[in-house]
Amino acid sequence: MHPSRWGDPALAVPLPAPARALVEAVFGIEERPALAEVVLPAPAIDPGLLDEVRAVVGAEHVCTDDATRRLRTRGRSTPDLLRQRAGDLADAPDAVVRPGDHAEVAAVLDWAVAHQVAVVPFGGGTSVTGGLAARRDGFAGLVSLDLGRMRRLLAVDPVSMTATLEPGLRGPEAEALLAAEGLTLGHFPQSFEHASIGGFAATRSSGQSSAGYGRFDALVVGLRVATPRGELRLGAAPMSAAGPDLRQLLLGSEGAFGVITEVTVRVRSLPAEKVYEGWRWASFAEGTTAMRTLAQSGLLPTVLRLSDETETGLDLAHPEDLGAPAEGAGGCLMVTGFEGAPAAVAARRAAVTEVLRGLGGTPLGEEPGRSWAHGRFAAPYLRDALLDVGVLVETLETATFWSQVSRLHAAVREALETALGSPVLVLCHVSHVYETGCSLYFTVAARQGDDPLARWAAAKEAASAAIVAAGATITHHHAVGTDHRPWLRAEIGDLGVSVLRAVKADLDPTGILNPGVLVP
Amino acid sequence: MHPSRWGDPALAVPLPAPARALVEAVFGIEERPALAEVVLPAPAIDPGLLDEVRAVVGAEHVCTDDATRRLRTRGRSTPDLLRQRAGDLADAPDAVVRPGDHAEVAAVLDWAVAHQVAVVPFGGGTSVTGGLAARRDGFAGLVSLDLGRMRRLLAVDPVSMTATLEPGLRGPEAEALLAAEGLTLGHFPQSFEHASIGGFAATRSSGQSSAGYGRFDALVVGLRVATPRGELRLGAAPMSAAGPDLRQLLLGSEGAFGVITEVTVRVRSLPAEKVYEGWRWASFAEGTTAMRTLAQSGLLPTVLRLSDETETGLDLAHPEDLGAPAEGAGGCLMVTGFEGAPAAVAARRAAVTEVLRGLGGTPLGEEPGRSWAHGRFAAPYLRDALLDVGVLVETLETATFWSQVSRLHAAVREALETALGSPVLVLCHVSHVYETGCSLYFTVAARQGDDPLARWAAAKEAASAAIVAAGATITHHHAVGTDHRPWLRAEIGDLGVSVLRAVKADLDPTGILNPGVLVP
Repeated sequence: MHPSRWGDPALAVPLPAPARALVEAVFGIEERPALAEVVLPAPAIDPGLLDEVRAVVGAEHVCTDDATRRLRTRGRSTPDLLRQRAGDLADAPDAVVRPGDHAEVAAVLDWAVAHQVAVVPFGGGTSVTGGLAARRDGFAGLVSLDLGRMRRLLAVDPVSMTATLEPGLRGPEAEALLAAEGLTLGHFPQSFEHASIGGFAATRSSGQSSAGYGRFDALVVGLRVATPRGELRLGAAPMSAAGPDLRQLLLGSEGAFGVITEVTVRVRSLPAEKVYEGWRWASFAEGTTAMRTLAQSGLLPTVLRLSDETETGLDLAHPEDLGAPAEGAGGCLMVTGFEGAPAAVAARRAAVTEVLRGLGGTPLGEEPGRSWAHGRFAAPYLRDALLDVGVLVETLETATFWSQVSRLHAAVREALETALGSPVLVLCHVSHVYETGCSLYFTVAARQGDDPLARWAAAKEAASAAIVAAGATITHHHAVGTDHRPWLRAEIGDLGVSVLRAVKADLDPTGILNPGVLVP
Repeated sequence: MHPSRWGDPALAVPLPAPARALVEAVFGIEERPALAEVVLPAPAIDPGLLDEVRAVVGAEHVCTDDATRRLRTRGRSTPDLLRQRAGDLADAPDAVVRPGDHAEVAAVLDWAVAHQVAVVPFGGGTSVTGGLAARRDGFAGLVSLDLGRMRRLLAVDPVSMTATLEPGLRGPEAEALLAAEGLTLGHFPQSFEHASIGGFAATRSSGQSSAGYGRFDALVVGLRVATPRGELRLGAAPMSAAGPDLRQLLLGSEGAFGVITEVTVRVRSLPAEKVYEGWRWASFAEGTTAMRTLAQSGLLPTVLRLSDETETGLDLAHPEDLGAPAEGAGGCLMVTGFEGAPAAVAARRAAVTEVLRGLGGTPLGEEPGRSWAHGRFAAPYLRDALLDVGVLVETLETATFWSQVSRLHAAVREALETALGSPVLVLCHVSHVYETGCSLYFTVAARQGDDPLARWAAAKEAASAAIVAAGATITHHHAVGTDHRPWLRAEIGDLGVSVLRAVKADLDPTGILNPGVLVP
């Protein structure tokens, strides 16, 4: 990835002309190029300590060069990008250490404990909640533990339909290895092209096909974890009543309890057929009622998304046409997708179609589905182009129970609009549904102003307060990191925080793992 | 319940004649009546302490009479019954305390902490793993915290399809309250008639309809828990990425971390139709392959069970005919059940039938399904009648991944047969399936001999060792209690045990909650 932009630099695009015209009309254009030259702070760790860790992983796998450190500085939230663009690389690691297997991870942790070095586990670097911005005060140094060398498919059990993967595998690499066996994981978050298996587990990622394949935490049947206190191997059976499910304590632990070194996941057969299509609903309320009906009837498609009126009007599926007059009659766009064997796809699609027609949805055919599938990983590139012309653009997400969706949607939108003032655009979609509730994913655009970081901080604060006041979760699939840490106590209570601290103290007694992340 | 037998004394039955003939032929009859008169140890707690707790819950809700204490002594495993039958009531609580709400539970815990009194949370008293046999050494007394007064339906959200239940509700009571709203929980373990909502959550219970409705832990979306350190309220959304899922740390905590005072569960509409039917498979391997195919095709019935050849031959569905010549041609009996709206039942049933026919199953029509449904809660009564005539009969269960099922089935059977010697009967069925694996539930019958407790302890030890050696879980749905505690370390490792201890120390620093249960 490019240090101050999303993804593959070769795929970076200038802002398409209609979008530029829209920005000009709504916000005005203010060119805000990123600084061309940013100087990193020099490594602030005793070089002798690095020699010791070179002996563990090999000298070539301990890097202190600027380019390597720059790419492992923070994640890819808009504040992260704004800081990089403004030349602030204060959170750069002193060194990047690249272990080759579980034993090397364990040895690096031993070294870090012995010398009180902070360790930030690094997978794909796509955190959008400050999960890679660890505290360094009180430590002899801070190293990025880059798991990128650990990218093997360790085992496949085609009878049980499980596979054991190393944490450094990026989404497409994991899918390619599984595809060679006729299998798929089916986990496609927007960060799919860059994010890693270990990161998916550590952050409880949820993908665009979660209705059909399940959230990543629901896919995991086994974990191997290296901690400063030794090794954890969890998952003797698909499910168990042998006490609390400790897998669920490590899932979502964001590198603060241990380093996930192996993930055993449920896999499925590669789908022979994939069909995506669109439906129009008169309102967001009608659309969410339709989603709820499907979820509570056990009739979920593989993909199920619904954009609210504002997002539908802007048609993010066609960034190249952004700002062009929207086709059709407004309302809310739903995308349904079906993947699997042809007979199963046909049966499920027919059953879903019957329900949606019965509820008054208007079928739009396959074009809107194809468009969504074509652009499904592209939005973050558009963000860079918008940042370049002075637009502050960021996302946040939450989840709640069905009876609270409408109230939460209104409350978060109002909080964002009030905090940022006019002109502002607040878009929302539902991308993950359950029998009892769903997620809400907001995209916000406003002027950057003189201090975009402060402007976003105020907006995030207002949105988070609205989420907490509504009793919803502070994050449905972006994890806690440092950005949501101030709000976690409101969600799990003083005693929940106490339990997290107790587990942290047990597994990481000297607190070297991702200090300042997750645990309040 | 009767103190030394299962369930409702009015439903106790003498051994049916064919079963008695079978016992006579296989094991010989040795009448072993329970002692008529058993003297309880006197309460060993300072009466002044009880006066203090009377002030909290009301004098009428602190009981020290023999009958009340006797019914809250241990659970309903065969060793528990054997000890009661032999006059050993050494584990009787000193008093039974019956709080009326969350605040009273919290106040009782404060009292127990102040005076170092051990507290055993008590729901339905149906533990079969020693979950109610707490250690009392080092404590000023031991009280049974009977949650039977907390039996309200606190809230229903018909949009989100959730309900909030108090922990003391027994299965039928909860279903009756929900049925009045047109809803069902769908959780029907064999202990359904007596076990409680709090117990289902605390032990990760799994019901006979788990294929369709889900395990109890999968039904839970929210928990309220009273602990010696205060209150935990968990479940802000159906799913979240706000760190580890702490609900999954309290589910399965068996009263050792806190007392569950409210459980919010996913509910479903009452099914308009229920159909159960039977299938015959040539072998257990063919039957499990069929189950796996259904699970991995996303085509699970609501109920799915498969008995191995031995269990099929004995036909436990007809205890009144046990020992009579089995009808039909041997093989393995599968029961499939479908519940829901008529159209959904018809569609699912047709799809399942097509798969099972394609795999070579022989349809047996609805009679075997009806028989199973009729007798589904009856087997524990038969156990009492068998204990009366000198048969040692007990169950144990485990789960593993599909590729290991056959090996585990053989290993556990062999371990039990070797430990108990001839004559012995080892029956097995699969009653819970997942995409990646399934449970195995064994029923064992042998002679009681001179020391039935020692004979069972040796058999349980051998079976547990076989389970651990196979890498399977020590329990799929019976919890850890005291009986599985020696084996938990093998399953979750030294570090997993350390984490459980850290959580216990945080929530229950003086260790008053169910001491000696769960945490090694």
